[in-house]
Amino acid sequence: MGKKLTSRSEDYSKWYNELVVKADLAENSGVRGCMVIKPYGFAIWEKMQAQLDKMFKETGHENAYFPLFIPKSYLSKEASHVEGFAKECAVVTHYRLKNAEDGSGIVVDENAKLEEELIVRPTSETIIWDTYRKWVQSYRDLPILVNQWANVVRWEMRTRLFLRTAEFLWQEGHTAHATEKEALEEAEQMMHVYAEFVENYMGVPVIKGTKTESERFAGAVETYCIEALMQDGKALQAGTSHFLGQNFAKAFDVKFANREGKQEYVWATSWGVSTRLMGALVMTHSDDNGLVLPPNLAPIQVVIVPIYKGLEQLDAISEKVDPLVKELRAKGISVKYDKRDTHKPGFKFNEYELKGVPVRLAVGQRDLENGTFEVARRDTLEKESVKADEVIEKIETLMKDIQENIFKKALDFREERITMVDTYEEFKKVIEEKGGFVSAHWDGTTATEDKIKEETKATIRCIPLNAELEEGRCMVTGNSSTQRVLFAKAY
Amino acid sequence: MGKKLTSRSEDYSKWYNELVVKADLAENSGVRGCMVIKPYGFAIWEKMQAQLDKMFKETGHENAYFPLFIPKSYLSKEASHVEGFAKECAVVTHYRLKNAEDGSGIVVDENAKLEEELIVRPTSETIIWDTYRKWVQSYRDLPILVNQWANVVRWEMRTRLFLRTAEFLWQEGHTAHATEKEALEEAEQMMHVYAEFVENYMGVPVIKGTKTESERFAGAVETYCIEALMQDGKALQAGTSHFLGQNFAKAFDVKFANREGKQEYVWATSWGVSTRLMGALVMTHSDDNGLVLPPNLAPIQVVIVPIYKGLEQLDAISEKVDPLVKELRAKGISVKYDKRDTHKPGFKFNEYELKGVPVRLAVGQRDLENGTFEVARRDTLEKESVKADEVIEKIETLMKDIQENIFKKALDFREERITMVDTYEEFKKVIEEKGGFVSAHWDGTTATEDKIKEETKATIRCIPLNAELEEGRCMVTGNSSTQRVLFAKAY
Repeated sequence: MGKKLTSRSEDYSKWYNELVVKADLAENSGVRGCMVIKPYGFAIWEKMQAQLDKMFKETGHENAYFPLFIPKSYLSKEASHVEGFAKECAVVTHYRLKNAEDGSGIVVDENAKLEEELIVRPTSETIIWDTYRKWVQSYRDLPILVNQWANVVRWEMRTRLFLRTAEFLWQEGHTAHATEKEALEEAEQMMHVYAEFVENYMGVPVIKGTKTESERFAGAVETYCIEALMQDGKALQAGTSHFLGQNFAKAFDVKFANREGKQEYVWATSWGVSTRLMGALVMTHSDDNGLVLPPNLAPIQVVIVPIYKGLEQLDAISEKVDPLVKELRAKGISVKYDKRDTHKPGFKFNEYELKGVPVRLAVGQRDLENGTFEVARRDTLEKESVKADEVIEKIETLMKDIQENIFKKALDFREERITMVDTYEEFKKVIEEKGGFVSAHWDGTTATEDKIKEETKATIRCIPLNAELEEGRCMVTGNSSTQRVLFAKAY
Repeated sequence: MGKKLTSRSEDYSKWYNELVVKADLAENSGVRGCMVIKPYGFAIWEKMQAQLDKMFKETGHENAYFPLFIPKSYLSKEASHVEGFAKECAVVTHYRLKNAEDGSGIVVDENAKLEEELIVRPTSETIIWDTYRKWVQSYRDLPILVNQWANVVRWEMRTRLFLRTAEFLWQEGHTAHATEKEALEEAEQMMHVYAEFVENYMGVPVIKGTKTESERFAGAVETYCIEALMQDGKALQAGTSHFLGQNFAKAFDVKFANREGKQEYVWATSWGVSTRLMGALVMTHSDDNGLVLPPNLAPIQVVIVPIYKGLEQLDAISEKVDPLVKELRAKGISVKYDKRDTHKPGFKFNEYELKGVPVRLAVGQRDLENGTFEVARRDTLEKESVKADEVIEKIETLMKDIQENIFKKALDFREERITMVDTYEEFKKVIEEKGGFVSAHWDGTTATEDKIKEETKATIRCIPLNAELEEGRCMVTGNSSTQRVLFAKAY
């Protein structure tokens, strides 16, 4: 296991980086900014994918697949879109390598230069809307409700495992509608789907809202988002859903004949969550001993560790454990019985604590005699002795309790860190010293937003949905405002 | 639906291309050689993925994810590997675009040139073995049994939907072992897993074997393969599993301490199947009316079409159909009840025939009176009237029957097209006129293999596994041979 983790209070950022690597979630690769997602980390992502995919299908969406490459000219068709992505994209210029004539090795073959450069997709609106043009003729072809699971590339200069990587995995929904109203409803619906997933499966509480103009997706008319709070008091955008208006339909000339036979431009949405959620999961719940995983997403929900001397004792323990494993699996609970004889129980305890396994059972000689198991829960580190015939019920209860408890703990943490302020002085003090979300009045201008960002590094995370209207004055300019918005420093 | 499909006898290749597009499986995109997999096609691929993934996990494999990009220098480390892939790879040279100074649009920013070019992965052995070096220290770290679902790019000049595309989706297993024996067993096991999947789920019979040296994967010591036969008499390689020896371990310096504490190089395998399987599925079973899908992979297994005049009749039909739909779904059968009033029954019949839905139920006024359904099976186009209380049983039987029947039909077709020949004259005649597999003696040299390929376009598809040894003479050179091999023209 190597030495102990750096603690959160000592260096939160270092704690995170160490934890992701030590818990076998991911590691850096030999390719700048690109990560390797290790099997244990990928197993969590697979569980996330499976649940999200189910929720997308329940809301009427189908999956499809579009090209990895985007011709440069496509990207340029939507003005604000190219503005947003041109500065950080991987460009394919050639399609062949060859042996250097001077024998110095393999080089790019200059005779194999592409006529038009291809961009590795940073997001797929352009290639998808170029395709939708062929799919849509009449209102009968609408809506198109399509999702894609894919890798995308954004050439970030400063990267961190899961939180900001050059390549990441995500899903991107791209829908086409006959009316503005329907598209708006779709964009809002998907924000709610994301919130439901993040809260009920990841156990991470979120605030729903919309982005200000300067924080909007490049090409969107409105961006809905869900915002979470990490343990260091910084916010993390956990998912976004965009109402794109007719911007991409106009850029790619996607029209349909409405019921009256008149040609209209199609209305669009797009929405996505990514492997960034893995970072949010780690940073919300984990502690100085390692990961804390929600039972709903843990690849191993229960681990059983035998404590024994000699094979005879192990056999006696296995006789008790094997049927339990079977019963738990029949109930859909994923169990690992770790009887490796190459490692001591204490080593195993540390390993599963580090890896965030929600429930650990230990069973030794005394438990055998008493007919009990020692049951430990990862979230609170509490242990108790449970009678063998009550252990399944106990585990089932713990699965629910732990899921609820870590959500509640994160919610309490966040609620304590939403501070309402009325002056800019107070704002700066809270942002600097306490962190978390700060609820304040703002005059609605990008100029003020930029000034605040420059002076405090805090940005407007969202204009909360369904927040109460309240007459007030912008804390910076004193101009009138009708609603508080949420500021925070963010990942 | 547009006009009828080109028939297979008229132009097999055109029939295939039209069918893939008209049945909504895939279409060409605006990016040369890259396809769009449409929702209906992707739903079949998802079913393939789900089943394969289950079989991989049952054989002890876990999923992980490795970078899309491979530094040029990595590719060069294994000599025959770079030889195999350098001529057809997409090369990333820059990481930023900018506005041209002369206002002519968006151009590559020459100030953002990469120090080392990155290759879009054509396969991931190099980046993965660079990673495994960090994962393996001792025999306790072995085996590593990892699979990846990913997109890869090979810059093919002549592309065809599913069969040969610049970008395709696949899975690639990459395993690391302490002994040669274990690695060989793994490579062979995965060939068997592939064969089981392709035969039992896709309904496509395959021949298992090994590749000759010239047909082997670039960097492999032995390549196991499964070969299928299409309706035009051409073979299609449906999956390969490679024993890589210690080639990649040596190229990337991956050693482990064995039980005696001695350093040894690790033994490797890799194995993959791709969206090419979609092409094999289409070409094996489909007919001049459209797709024929195996029930085990059909996104819609049963479609129900009401035949009615006016809403009152439709309501009466729905009263009978709705509970049936519910019952079938409870049994895990995917059903679509198509009561769209925008299309006539005849149109719908053609549509589902084209899309290969295994079973179609129709119900009209007379069926209502008689308490029956008209049940049609897609594979034989047979129809019969079935009593309402027997229809579920009938459907369950048909699911099995159709699955078995299409396999048997394909098997009979193939068995009729394995021809044993002893002279080169006969060989050329069979390859030209009859097609299919030709079983013949060959002297084991690449020179003879090349000559045959040049003169007849036929290649050695495989050296069949467990074939009888038989003394013979090479049909071309007359040199001695101990086993017949299988030749065919191939996709």
